[in-house]
Amino acid sequence: MVVFLADKTEPGAWNLPLYKIFADPFNTAGLVIDPKMHKGFDFEVHDLIEHKKIVFHCPEDLYDMLVFIGAMGRYGIKAVYSRTLDEIAAVSSTQRLNLMAGKYVGKDDPVCIVRCQSGMPAVGEVLEPFSKPHLVAGWMRGSHYGPLMPCSVKQSTPTRFDGPPRVVALGFQLCHGKLVGPQDFFADPAYDEARRKANQIADYMRSLGPFEPHRLGLDELEYTTMPQVMEKLAGRFEPVQD
Amino acid sequence: MVVFLADKTEPGAWNLPLYKIFADPFNTAGLVIDPKMHKGFDFEVHDLIEHKKIVFHCPEDLYDMLVFIGAMGRYGIKAVYSRTLDEIAAVSSTQRLNLMAGKYVGKDDPVCIVRCQSGMPAVGEVLEPFSKPHLVAGWMRGSHYGPLMPCSVKQSTPTRFDGPPRVVALGFQLCHGKLVGPQDFFADPAYDEARRKANQIADYMRSLGPFEPHRLGLDELEYTTMPQVMEKLAGRFEPVQD
Amino acid sequence: MVVFLADKTEPGAWNLPLYKIFADPFNTAGLVIDPKMHKGFDFEVHDLIEHKKIVFHCPEDLYDMLVFIGAMGRYGIKAVYSRTLDEIAAVSSTQRLNLMAGKYVGKDDPVCIVRCQSGMPAVGEVLEPFSKPHLVAGWMRGSHYGPLMPCSVKQSTPTRFDGPPRVVALGFQLCHGKLVGPQDFFADPAYDEARRKANQIADYMRSLGPFEPHRLGLDELEYTTMPQVMEKLAGRFEPVQD
Amino acid sequence: MVVFLADKTEPGAWNLPLYKIFADPFNTAGLVIDPKMHKGFDFEVHDLIEHKKIVFHCPEDLYDMLVFIGAMGRYGIKAVYSRTLDEIAAVSSTQRLNLMAGKYVGKDDPVCIVRCQSGMPAVGEVLEPFSKPHLVAGWMRGSHYGPLMPCSVKQSTPTRFDGPPRVVALGFQLCHGKLVGPQDFFADPAYDEARRKANQIADYMRSLGPFEPHRLGLDELEYTTMPQVMEKLAGRFEPVQD
Amino acid sequence: MVVFLADKTEPGAWNLPLYKIFADPFNTAGLVIDPKMHKGFDFEVHDLIEHKKIVFHCPEDLYDMLVFIGAMGRYGIKAVYSRTLDEIAAVSSTQRLNLMAGKYVGKDDPVCIVRCQSGMPAVGEVLEPFSKPHLVAGWMRGSHYGPLMPCSVKQSTPTRFDGPPRVVALGFQLCHGKLVGPQDFFADPAYDEARRKANQIADYMRSLGPFEPHRLGLDELEYTTMPQVMEKLAGRFEPVQD
Amino acid sequence: MVVFLADKTEPGAWNLPLYKIFADPFNTAGLVIDPKMHKGFDFEVHDLIEHKKIVFHCPEDLYDMLVFIGAMGRYGIKAVYSRTLDEIAAVSSTQRLNLMAGKYVGKDDPVCIVRCQSGMPAVGEVLEPFSKPHLVAGWMRGSHYGPLMPCSVKQSTPTRFDGPPRVVALGFQLCHGKLVGPQDFFADPAYDEARRKANQIADYMRSLGPFEPHRLGLDELEYTTMPQVMEKLAGRFEPVQD
Amino acid sequence: MVVFLADKTEPGAWNLPLYKIFADPFNTAGLVIDPKMHKGFDFEVHDLIEHKKIVFHCPEDLYDMLVFIGAMGRYGIKAVYSRTLDEIAAVSSTQRLNLMAGKYVGKDDPVCIVRCQSGMPAVGEVLEPFSKPHLVAGWMRGSHYGPLMPCSVKQSTPTRFDGPPRVVALGFQLCHGKLVGPQDFFADPAYDEARRKANQIADYMRSLGPFEPHRLGLDELEYTTMPQVMEKLAGRFEPVQD
Amino acid sequence: MVVFLADKTEPGAWNLPLYKIFADPFNTAGLVIDPKMHKGFDFEVHDLIEHKKIVFHCPEDLYDMLVFIGAMGRYGIKAVYSRTLDEIAAVSSTQRLNLMAGKYVGKDDPVCIVRCQSGMPAVGEVLEPFSKPHLVAGWMRGSHYGPLMPCSVKQSTPTRFDGPPRVVALGFQLCHGKLVGPQDFFADPAYDEARRKANQIADYMRSLGPFEPHRLGLDELEYTTMPQVMEKLAGRFEPVQD
Repeated sequence: MVVFLADKTEPGAWNLPLYKIFADPFNTAGLVIDPKMHKGFDFEVHDLIEHKKIVFHCPEDLYDMLVFIGAMGRYGIKAVYSRTLDEIAAVSSTQRLNLMAGKYVGKDDPVCIVRCQSGMPAVGEVLEPFSKPHLVAGWMRGSHYGPLMPCSVKQSTPTRFDGPPRVVALGFQLCHGKLVGPQDFFADPAYDEARRKANQIADYMRSLGPFEPHRLGLDELEYTTMPQVMEKLAGRFEPVQD
Repeated sequence: MVVFLADKTEPGAWNLPLYKIFADPFNTAGLVIDPKMHKGFDFEVHDLIEHKKIVFHCPEDLYDMLVFIGAMGRYGIKAVYSRTLDEIAAVSSTQRLNLMAGKYVGKDDPVCIVRCQSGMPAVGEVLEPFSKPHLVAGWMRGSHYGPLMPCSVKQSTPTRFDGPPRVVALGFQLCHGKLVGPQDFFADPAYDEARRKANQIADYMRSLGPFEPHRLGLDELEYTTMPQVMEKLAGRFEPVQD
Repeated sequence: MVVFLADKTEPGAWNLPLYKIFADPFNTAGLVIDPKMHKGFDFEVHDLIEHKKIVFHCPEDLYDMLVFIGAMGRYGIKAVYSRTLDEIAAVSSTQRLNLMAGKYVGKDDPVCIVRCQSGMPAVGEVLEPFSKPHLVAGWMRGSHYGPLMPCSVKQSTPTRFDGPPRVVALGFQLCHGKLVGPQDFFADPAYDEARRKANQIADYMRSLGPFEPHRLGLDELEYTTMPQVMEKLAGRFEPVQD
Repeated sequence: MVVFLADKTEPGAWNLPLYKIFADPFNTAGLVIDPKMHKGFDFEVHDLIEHKKIVFHCPEDLYDMLVFIGAMGRYGIKAVYSRTLDEIAAVSSTQRLNLMAGKYVGKDDPVCIVRCQSGMPAVGEVLEPFSKPHLVAGWMRGSHYGPLMPCSVKQSTPTRFDGPPRVVALGFQLCHGKLVGPQDFFADPAYDEARRKANQIADYMRSLGPFEPHRLGLDELEYTTMPQVMEKLAGRFEPVQD
Repeated sequence: MVVFLADKTEPGAWNLPLYKIFADPFNTAGLVIDPKMHKGFDFEVHDLIEHKKIVFHCPEDLYDMLVFIGAMGRYGIKAVYSRTLDEIAAVSSTQRLNLMAGKYVGKDDPVCIVRCQSGMPAVGEVLEPFSKPHLVAGWMRGSHYGPLMPCSVKQSTPTRFDGPPRVVALGFQLCHGKLVGPQDFFADPAYDEARRKANQIADYMRSLGPFEPHRLGLDELEYTTMPQVMEKLAGRFEPVQD
Repeated sequence: MVVFLADKTEPGAWNLPLYKIFADPFNTAGLVIDPKMHKGFDFEVHDLIEHKKIVFHCPEDLYDMLVFIGAMGRYGIKAVYSRTLDEIAAVSSTQRLNLMAGKYVGKDDPVCIVRCQSGMPAVGEVLEPFSKPHLVAGWMRGSHYGPLMPCSVKQSTPTRFDGPPRVVALGFQLCHGKLVGPQDFFADPAYDEARRKANQIADYMRSLGPFEPHRLGLDELEYTTMPQVMEKLAGRFEPVQD
Repeated sequence: MVVFLADKTEPGAWNLPLYKIFADPFNTAGLVIDPKMHKGFDFEVHDLIEHKKIVFHCPEDLYDMLVFIGAMGRYGIKAVYSRTLDEIAAVSSTQRLNLMAGKYVGKDDPVCIVRCQSGMPAVGEVLEPFSKPHLVAGWMRGSHYGPLMPCSVKQSTPTRFDGPPRVVALGFQLCHGKLVGPQDFFADPAYDEARRKANQIADYMRSLGPFEPHRLGLDELEYTTMPQVMEKLAGRFEPVQD
Repeated sequence: MVVFLADKTEPGAWNLPLYKIFADPFNTAGLVIDPKMHKGFDFEVHDLIEHKKIVFHCPEDLYDMLVFIGAMGRYGIKAVYSRTLDEIAAVSSTQRLNLMAGKYVGKDDPVCIVRCQSGMPAVGEVLEPFSKPHLVAGWMRGSHYGPLMPCSVKQSTPTRFDGPPRVVALGFQLCHGKLVGPQDFFADPAYDEARRKANQIADYMRSLGPFEPHRLGLDELEYTTMPQVMEKLAGRFEPVQD
């Protein structure tokens, strides 16, 4: 069992890795090689704005599902189920504090738990997506896209521009009803290049300053303090006469 | 006079460079050193959705202006004026085809014209922002963020993923009422590292596939074919019972 | 219409790019965004040894298909069909000279033709897989894996270790029954990093010398001259007494 | 509260970071997004030679201020004030030992203290400028420009050419009148690329040997031992007859 | 005496390093310079499928031997003997669990022991091949080629995609019949670049997903679960009518 | 004979290369190996402010000379003489337009001519210093330090930030009283890395914006328009009461 | 048939490539795979000082031969013969001008001709060694080690430090007694990384200045002008009293 | 006081750093700036073969001295003296074990002690040469050139190819007749790039295998075991009949 803990980002950060772990055969060799995974997985996706849900059966619904989960600020993967075993394979926190509170009340600390082995992906297939740091929403003031840096527990305190966003992976083994662990997976030097890449992408994104897509889109900033700033200037606009 | 022609992007692509040219003293030394530029510039910004406009006086309105022009899909810099000379300094095409037509009817080919010297920025200050390729909206199917690659005229045909987005810079000299030129500025090897950087960022953004912020946000995709795809699945959603 | 011509490799080289173009939503945005591509594509795969064929319906047969086409020396994608339009989308040469002749009689010059636009992938989606040079079989004496380097027509003559394997992409437009073209797509500097990467991977693979997986596997070398060498030494083997 | 301690450089080293923290919207998102920072900050700048001071109101005095603080050997930012809160935001040591003593009596150990949060910049915005090591005066014999390397406390002893100049950042929290801390911010691997960049720029600057701008300008060397050397040769000069 | 312990790979991983240590004069200077090594070494090679063996006398049998040991999944170097001293120089574990069990029963943990000095190679010549990480079979599900990363004991737990494959080198000194040690050779920063290279090659190989030669060849997958997957689809094939 | 022509810099740009060519044994092997160069060279150095001159005999005056020529804005190497041949070896333009006119009247186009062979340095020793681009004064508005980029004639038009500063090297052979040539030396791909380095250093220096030492020191800006800007604010300064 | 022409180096430059082409199975796959090359090649090696020769039979004399040809200033490979075909395979110019004249009379322009195909190596195996630029003697004043840069004919004029040493490869086909060609092999972009590597190694070697092994060893400098310099100082030495 | 201890190299390794510390104004700013160092230093150089010595007065004897100390296998800098203070500034071990014993009896462990401050170079000037790892003789079997890697005490055990050669720097302060220390200077991250560079150069040199200049020249190998190997083959040489 792998427990992922992220900081300075939102639950949408799990969409890309969960997709890769359970539906991308370039990430997870088991989808192709392992008879117990070959039938694929079901994904329960939540619409975080309208509080609705939908289940996608992969691989056949792959293209449909990506329409939604690619917009990770609105649609979140709540859970994944094995179609062979009919058991839950992964679950993630999807509540977004800001949406719940109606305003920016702080940052979420999203969590995701994934089961491994015996019809589930191997541990290494679960960790694999994090070796290529993807862009996630959060970072400074919950208002910026930045790379998700895989870290050991010791490296996990964000500082630069209050980031970049971090993720740690802790491995536990269920043994006679007890959790044995944790193993601190991202302490492995195999993620050194991922950390370096994350720093380089952080440099690049930061060079865009207050411009999208470093800064989140206007709709995503609704729950930050920016609307107050915009309102102040509303009166200075005047119509364009074409 | 420098004429910029871009391909596979939208007029919002000019916001960042126009800001840097006329309001960023780290880009334009003349803002600090040149007495004729020291008073700064006025920016006319259009709200492309609600057809309104506003004029920002920089430097004093700097922070206010960035609230808007950072959202370059909605707010575009239409023109820039010298506060010292009371003359127009730059003008850009800001109509967005999709917004005008109400659906995706093809890609815009945005144009921007900037005047140089004598109270206006030097040619090299006008070209400078393009040495750091920023992310612009457009690319494949007008639906993706990608780096804006500075190119010579000969290098300007986009291919990879129908891109990456390109910009050429043509220099003309006004001489006895005639335009003499053009000089193909980005043919200079001084932009070789910018092209290399653009390719590397293109590799990175492409690795995100159909996920934001490589794919544009849902509101930006309104005028593409994606809403048709989303509608098809609308019936499969069901309420979440908390 | 894009015509791909490769040198110093075998038809199996098309498997990975055809998969990406027509079934990988991280490569082809249209699979997700474009309603006319959303239903996916059918792949006709040939078993080049036993002269059998099978049709895979993607996305639902994705994992099944990869079991076979990943072994590109034996299973080749002969053709791809649009499930929406019920029309052919791509066709490739799949005969392997060696298999036909029963011995090594020279190298194949594999060809692949892909249709674009209107329910087919965009040109840029068709070219995209070649921006990440993958390993293909062929190169020196048809016996080595090496990276497939995208080249302009002018750069297409292989030299180093008789390679590395090359591919050119020529664009034609069908216009009143005539082919207009060709456009030499890989002449674009957007592929400069791909060429550099190909050279670096070529350096790495060459450092493995006569060891797999730089050298092809024993079964793949059946039609080269190596079996003659092996036979000579057969008599020197003696049983292991455990 | 962040306390910066630098070694092998002069107080002028704080000018660039203080400018970025309190006046550069590409560094500090809060200037744009946060209503409590939106009005900007006042900078008290001292003329270290003529013992005069001036207050700049940013953003409107931005270009004016840069005329002076860009010359960081003569003009130092003594303090920064929030225009919204009317409170002090940062203070730095600006006395230059050499100027006070009239000769080179050793190196300054400049200190800078910055307040964070609640109308002040976020901690990550305060740390951000140090992720791009800038050139500062000092290093060997107080006579050379070199990059300012962000370091953990453990890494902070300069050696190479008595440098390169270092800066550590210690975080304290004011809690019931007591300082809790310190947190050693630059121990974060997020600054690994900054350290690498600093080493590379150190290599480059050192390659210039005793030439400007690695060596400081003649006026800056006034308080070193170099004037004694120059004097010795004064007699050997003779007039040029044009 | 150097003891090598590898994880996530098969005994064939020793073929390339043993060849380099005992037969490649570009790796082992002693073959050229040291009179006691100048006569070369004998290699005992086992055919792991047909349980036969052969002895190659190097250098004269060099080209012959490479025909076989280059196919490291089938032919393994069991032992190496000094021709000068007529003593054993190296021995490796060559049993392959899968071949013994007839199915995939887990991964081998191959071991190799090499003697050093006095007519044997120097310690540094024995360690040298691992400074250029070569591709070995194993990694995820024993089904993929990946680079063999030299690690300290502390760094030796594989995580990413259950890898990349690792090797540690422990040095023991025989002293009055007792083994003194171990020295953890790969803890030396001299292997930092090798680790970085291994990570970069791991990135590249992973980008090939389920395609050869990242995935092992079909014959190598015989003892994994993949044949079960292939069988399921056998009925869907139909003959090609040419 | 090599003629160097530079753009966007001042005559001081020649100080470092002339020093290396005629006095640095790490640059010029002939100083050590060639009996006709072994006695060294004399340097005539001009004080451009006080119109005085001095002759340094190298190697014995090496350290003395560097005190002055390191300050290349004030002290310029006017000519170099062979101590063995008692002949002129190099001559450079040293007048600075700004100093002559008393204000900024445009940029100098400095020229330098160096004789080669037969007691003079070899052609390759004369070109060598330019393979490591050093920082020179000039660039935008004659007010910035930037790297001197070696270029072919075709690449010699500066664009980025009106630069970076360029130098071309033209070779002529004196043959029966006629100049045969020119050979365009820097068109050689041997300078490709120098050009790339120059671009990277240009990126770094530009990141410093209006701060020293990217911007020239205050005394160097005396002849630009900056003093006018400074004067405007003089009245706002007030005394510091310690 | 491939004709190699080198500039700014000596005939010893061919030793390493000829060894790799005809005796290194990591370079030439044919040595392992091709029955007509499997028996190996004979090398005729000349002692350029004592005017003696010896023939080495490879592979069995491999280690012996390397003792000599590694010292490429004294021992040169004059010719290579196929042991299978009993025909000449390669021939090189081995006279060293300096040795013949007894003093430095200029630089050699070494030539090497290699036959290809039909029992000889493939063209790509002959070109392969030049993709990793090795260090050769020559360069400035025939007195320095530097990397041998593979170049197109157009790129072949050395400039930097009179180098770095260059090699071009021209392909001719013997057709009815006529030579058809030449093909300019190194114009292929497949050698771009080799050229870049050569420039980087040139930078490194140059940083060593007049120190070995950038400068040749004392015995190699015997025919340059350096002995004259040494002699001059002979009288200043005095005995050491231990 | 800095004590340098090196491993896997010979005393000649100190020649380049001692030259840079006491005679190269690009390394040591004090030679130019500090009046007490401006007169330069005297170098006592020993001829290790003929047991003679000579004193060079720098800067005037610079070119003369480099003729000798560049050949660091024969001429070693025994001591350096301040010309101003008339005191010893540095001393190094120069005996070469092999030369003393007449055969290879093991490797030297060369030591060098340098005094700092007060007319001597600053500590950072003494450490500076080691930030650019130069090639030194030694490494495997005392027969190869390799880069000298600056290391902390903890990193100082050579492994790879019995190297690369290492140097540690220990700082002691003389305080009331006692040595206080040591400070482990090269533990500073400022040498991380130097270590990386050393690894990259080690990779490059190793790629040359048994060829010069990775392998030492024949005269340098006199005291290794190679002459025994050469002798064995002497009889097989025969005269060349021109």
